[in-house]
Amino acid sequence: MEKIIQEVLDSNRKYTNYGQVASYIPELKKAKRDDLGICIIDKDNNVYKAGNCDTKFTIQSVSKTIVLAMALMDNEWQYVFSKVGMEPSGDPFNSIMKLETNDTKKPCNPMINAGAIVTTSLIKGSTLEEREERMLKFFRRMARNENIGINYDVYKSEKMTGDRNRAMAYLLKNDGFIDGDVDEVLELYFKQCSIEIDAVDLARIGVNLASYGVDIANGERIISESVSRMVKTFMITCGMYDASGEFAIKVGIPAKSGVGGGIMASVPNKMGIGVYGPALDKKGNSIAGVKVLQDLSQRMNLNIF
Amino acid sequence: MEKIIQEVLDSNRKYTNYGQVASYIPELKKAKRDDLGICIIDKDNNVYKAGNCDTKFTIQSVSKTIVLAMALMDNEWQYVFSKVGMEPSGDPFNSIMKLETNDTKKPCNPMINAGAIVTTSLIKGSTLEEREERMLKFFRRMARNENIGINYDVYKSEKMTGDRNRAMAYLLKNDGFIDGDVDEVLELYFKQCSIEIDAVDLARIGVNLASYGVDIANGERIISESVSRMVKTFMITCGMYDASGEFAIKVGIPAKSGVGGGIMASVPNKMGIGVYGPALDKKGNSIAGVKVLQDLSQRMNLNIF
Amino acid sequence: MEKIIQEVLDSNRKYTNYGQVASYIPELKKAKRDDLGICIIDKDNNVYKAGNCDTKFTIQSVSKTIVLAMALMDNEWQYVFSKVGMEPSGDPFNSIMKLETNDTKKPCNPMINAGAIVTTSLIKGSTLEEREERMLKFFRRMARNENIGINYDVYKSEKMTGDRNRAMAYLLKNDGFIDGDVDEVLELYFKQCSIEIDAVDLARIGVNLASYGVDIANGERIISESVSRMVKTFMITCGMYDASGEFAIKVGIPAKSGVGGGIMASVPNKMGIGVYGPALDKKGNSIAGVKVLQDLSQRMNLNIF
Amino acid sequence: MEKIIQEVLDSNRKYTNYGQVASYIPELKKAKRDDLGICIIDKDNNVYKAGNCDTKFTIQSVSKTIVLAMALMDNEWQYVFSKVGMEPSGDPFNSIMKLETNDTKKPCNPMINAGAIVTTSLIKGSTLEEREERMLKFFRRMARNENIGINYDVYKSEKMTGDRNRAMAYLLKNDGFIDGDVDEVLELYFKQCSIEIDAVDLARIGVNLASYGVDIANGERIISESVSRMVKTFMITCGMYDASGEFAIKVGIPAKSGVGGGIMASVPNKMGIGVYGPALDKKGNSIAGVKVLQDLSQRMNLNIF
Repeated sequence: MEKIIQEVLDSNRKYTNYGQVASYIPELKKAKRDDLGICIIDKDNNVYKAGNCDTKFTIQSVSKTIVLAMALMDNEWQYVFSKVGMEPSGDPFNSIMKLETNDTKKPCNPMINAGAIVTTSLIKGSTLEEREERMLKFFRRMARNENIGINYDVYKSEKMTGDRNRAMAYLLKNDGFIDGDVDEVLELYFKQCSIEIDAVDLARIGVNLASYGVDIANGERIISESVSRMVKTFMITCGMYDASGEFAIKVGIPAKSGVGGGIMASVPNKMGIGVYGPALDKKGNSIAGVKVLQDLSQRMNLNIF
Repeated sequence: MEKIIQEVLDSNRKYTNYGQVASYIPELKKAKRDDLGICIIDKDNNVYKAGNCDTKFTIQSVSKTIVLAMALMDNEWQYVFSKVGMEPSGDPFNSIMKLETNDTKKPCNPMINAGAIVTTSLIKGSTLEEREERMLKFFRRMARNENIGINYDVYKSEKMTGDRNRAMAYLLKNDGFIDGDVDEVLELYFKQCSIEIDAVDLARIGVNLASYGVDIANGERIISESVSRMVKTFMITCGMYDASGEFAIKVGIPAKSGVGGGIMASVPNKMGIGVYGPALDKKGNSIAGVKVLQDLSQRMNLNIF
Repeated sequence: MEKIIQEVLDSNRKYTNYGQVASYIPELKKAKRDDLGICIIDKDNNVYKAGNCDTKFTIQSVSKTIVLAMALMDNEWQYVFSKVGMEPSGDPFNSIMKLETNDTKKPCNPMINAGAIVTTSLIKGSTLEEREERMLKFFRRMARNENIGINYDVYKSEKMTGDRNRAMAYLLKNDGFIDGDVDEVLELYFKQCSIEIDAVDLARIGVNLASYGVDIANGERIISESVSRMVKTFMITCGMYDASGEFAIKVGIPAKSGVGGGIMASVPNKMGIGVYGPALDKKGNSIAGVKVLQDLSQRMNLNIF
Repeated sequence: MEKIIQEVLDSNRKYTNYGQVASYIPELKKAKRDDLGICIIDKDNNVYKAGNCDTKFTIQSVSKTIVLAMALMDNEWQYVFSKVGMEPSGDPFNSIMKLETNDTKKPCNPMINAGAIVTTSLIKGSTLEEREERMLKFFRRMARNENIGINYDVYKSEKMTGDRNRAMAYLLKNDGFIDGDVDEVLELYFKQCSIEIDAVDLARIGVNLASYGVDIANGERIISESVSRMVKTFMITCGMYDASGEFAIKVGIPAKSGVGGGIMASVPNKMGIGVYGPALDKKGNSIAGVKVLQDLSQRMNLNIF
């Protein structure tokens, strides 16, 4: 396994030359475009690493999977899905149009921004601080890493440049899909996007989802089997922005990417994979990261279909 | 197994009272709304049946999976996907809008009508007759049933009421996604939709996809492993019209439905399932059929996520 | 003339029974649905009235014409039209979709909410208070009525229920069409919508536009000829929400309606007409008001085409 | 007048260097891009010409105004507007999207292709030949020119490249807005677009509309006053493709352009103007032609607002 992932790393390093590091906020631009890291944790808790597995980066949209899991534990699933849909949208992650053209005006799914803002609003807690604490604690639990925290420079920039998300949130509020205060919901949303992790953390989250919600390290249940399945299902149908369909065809593994350059993949009953490569394609996915997962899928026969 | 499917049949029969039999052409209206049939064929070629497994009905959109497989065998996959996309659309099956609003104008995927018309146009043959013969032969091979043929009354009605599909085909022609003669492509498309099958045929097609393209009955390869995976992937992401995401969440099995009332499901490495129940929900899926598959998935732990 | 407008009032009173008084905020619901008032002021400054010409109501979207005039005086017209388009949209007044689907993302025109928020943002003044004062002063000047002021109950309700406008404003901010602070722009926008006027005020504004910007009462120029023409042009192409085309065909007079029940019409070189009738059709236009203008146009041959 | 139009011609000739001659069919590409012609006919039947007024070109979309007039004479106006709307669309002339997204699926107005195909289908005649003859006769009557005929090379090319219009027509048929045979309707539509005229013909049509439907040369009524007003209204709101709003603001005259390079303008109660300049902007309007009309409007104070 060590050998496979090292070979896959080497043969795909060339792809770090393609695409662009995210630049909509200054902090993200600082990432080194030739970084590439792969971590695999299997269900026997073996950890395999290659490349830049210690590099910290912000979790960004990968957080949508974890917050979805939390929303599904904090609320009846029927309630969650009365506020956010289950369908892939075929539109870019920050699209507003479907909120207007579809019948229900409900955001299509929890993996696009509009839907993710809704799931964030479903996190319980009597104050914003409590919600933030509960969220951070849950991220740490999923990743088995007490050191996980928020990158406040990124957070501040997200907040400053967040007018499009603000627009979405007010529309969602107007149409009854967000109950709380819009500013507070966005505060929490910008924070969840700004949580700093590394490839190992992503692999750990991935394997805990792969093992149907049981912590592979100690056998404790973190989330229910059914929630773990739902999250992986959304990862297949909508996890890779508007390239999700292509990724499912070519790789066939539930995965969620973020513009920080991370991809968290979860192979049911087998393993979690964390990949880091900050240069992105136009849809927001790590170019080298996608190539790495495609190779790993083929070499280890991980395609679930 | 016999017992399970009989119980599932009995407990879900009540759902045949909901929804409506398709009525856009007179022939479809003749279906008996309280019919319900389930057939399972596992990878050891055991056949289990309950209910109306002998009732014939037209395959309709389920044909899109088989024609896609054929197009992928008749052409390089890169060529196929230069003409039709890989992304779920989030729109109804007969939507035209995305053909205009997305960047490429390419139909989103081969499971919506526009994309299916493209894959039909990719079937090889020097004449329309030859293409039709090859197609029928391939359907018969996939279902191991030489008696499969076209219901010409349905075909004629499809043709007569096919102006919306005609509109799509001319738009696709205009934008360079169809090469041949529009009338001929539609002729073949209307015929493929009018092929008559039963629940057993659907289960057989499903199991042959589940076994990665190898005929479970005699070990002969019908389609390549990679094609079989692609087809199942599209079934998960776009197989159940614009309820595909919900079906993936609730059932978690690759499946394709048709307005004739059939659903063909394929559980990788395990079994094929054919279900027949002609009363449909508003999105075009058999109401009882979906319920049956949800129960089977839970009772036999078939969810792939 | 007195006779004509009295007859037109009488014969159209029956239409006050159709449609609904605006109800999205409680204050608007208080309007009496059978009120109907008509005022005409011709270019010789003759004032003709019939019906409820003293009833006060909020100006709502009619304010968009006046604020547009002001924006065009406060800025170079080229600058104004770099921030807001000149094209009718064919969409409802509060549509967001076109902000995403059109090439420039620029709001289509200054008569839909998104475009009107932009023109409001172009009103000059070093503080919000100064902008508000200048605006109120300009409304009073156009209507020759120093008593015109803001209905603060309506204003507060607009502000409370304004999340959709808030969403638009943040999107406009995000795309660079609004420069200032979003909350301040909206504050001013909600206030302009809450200005209280009557049918006489509307007729006065109409006649001053009809006379190409010269105050018909004293010969002083209020706005330039070119600005007066632009405003009337937008009234024809986009003044009656998404029924503007129909109104142009059937009535043929530049007019702008508001959900408060008012319509301000301006017949170039002839007269201004103010109509009040609070029961609205589904598109937001006064049902009786439209009928009154259709009759006046026919009886006095006012169609400009 | 002679002097004015000669000066306007001279000062705007430089604009023939901008834009592109239509090239979607080979015949249109043959036009000489530096041709520029202006003809004005006033209501006293004086004819003023400058530049290339004898050059023949195809009428293209200008035909939509004349066929609309004919449809309104052949049918009750209520029936016509049950099949085609009155609203500007804000979309390109060949857009299909609104046919799907608006409530009624009705084409927005008779000046976009979809709506024009509907009005063509409303021309009466027991055979296609009769409809074609009646149409040609009406064009000749409006232009007072018995020599007007069809350019068959253009017609054949339009027909060959007409798949997008074919797509629209089948969609309209499917949704009940076209009654007859789609191929026949398109045959007539392609022919009406291929009628060959010159700037003088356009000025003549324009002045006959300007005089409310009365032939300025002999006092005979050709179309009713009300039809003439409707046509001019659509020219203002939708006559210049998706630059109609801008043209109304900058020029303020009812006008209809075609990709052949012609613009027919009609100043109510004053004059008709025909302009020819084949180099087009991206929206399909003659660049020099628009500039010429802007200058004429300013110099002769023709703005109707």
